[in-house]
Amino acid sequence: MRQIAFLLVGIAMVAGIVAYMLPAFGQTHGETAPIFVTKIPLGYRDFRLISVAHEEGNLNSLGAVLGNDVAIKAYREGTLPYPNGTIIVALHYRHAPSEENDRIFGRAQSFVPGPPTNIQFMVKDSQKYAATGGWGFGHFSTDGKPGAEALMRTCFPCHAQEKARDLVFTQYAP
Amino acid sequence: MRQIAFLLVGIAMVAGIVAYMLPAFGQTHGETAPIFVTKIPLGYRDFRLISVAHEEGNLNSLGAVLGNDVAIKAYREGTLPYPNGTIIVALHYRHAPSEENDRIFGRAQSFVPGPPTNIQFMVKDSQKYAATGGWGFGHFSTDGKPGAEALMRTCFPCHAQEKARDLVFTQYAP
Repeated sequence: MRQIAFLLVGIAMVAGIVAYMLPAFGQTHGETAPIFVTKIPLGYRDFRLISVAHEEGNLNSLGAVLGNDVAIKAYREGTLPYPNGTIIVALHYRHAPSEENDRIFGRAQSFVPGPPTNIQFMVKDSQKYAATGGWGFGHFSTDGKPGAEALMRTCFPCHAQEKARDLVFTQYAP
Repeated sequence: MRQIAFLLVGIAMVAGIVAYMLPAFGQTHGETAPIFVTKIPLGYRDFRLISVAHEEGNLNSLGAVLGNDVAIKAYREGTLPYPNGTIIVALHYRHAPSEENDRIFGRAQSFVPGPPTNIQFMVKDSQKYAATGGWGFGHFSTDGKPGAEALMRTCFPCHAQEKARDLVFTQYAP
């Protein structure tokens, strides 16, 4: 009876260890929760221009897309996939009419960045972000807080539609 | 008779020198033709972001405004007037719908840079460009040719309306 009790405890322990290890095992193979960018990369406002973007509808957004040196080099040389170390950032603002410009033009036609809305990042690290195509996605509201997990889980499935350009939508503006 | 001849030659020489000097004198006081930027400044595509801009109407333009190091420093520190050496460049593109983005968003809302249209510069040199508020204005079409004089003469009178910000319309996007 005591031996059976030891055996059962032993089985329970092994099962517990296996259960404990499974998520870790899965994580290194990209089968569990994706990892997001939770710290704003340093110096992003000094990155160089990739392109600009205007979204109507609910987004009502005017934005700039910038890249660090690794990103700019890859874009200009057409390197795909983007190398580890690539950082792409999208600075988003409200698409706001400029009354001052309109007055000078003599008609309503001019739109400029209004209040900032959010900043989004794509950071390439093929190991760390293996679960999401090698890209870490980041979203920060104007108070610097990262996006909630429910929002963050929408990034990869959408970007994954752009396989031909390594999940990157924005193209380089000459 | 010979003395009168010498005198006349002398008067003619002085008059000639005065006539020769007058335009130069006028130029240093900004009273003659404005000077425009006729050579594209080197490295402008590596300048950092000041802001972005969208113009509807005839311009139908999506653009980025970049600045060299002197410009970015002045913008961030609020330095007015902008120091000599400031270079501001506006890269203009057609405001073009992105069918690819619209397909992914599931509706028509996304606009990106289409074909480039022109590149415009403001270069600060308070001596060289004294006739136009210390700014040299430049406009280059996609083939690199500078704008015709009739077009170039429209820059300063328009920018001169923005005296409070040293003739610069574009404000810094955070």
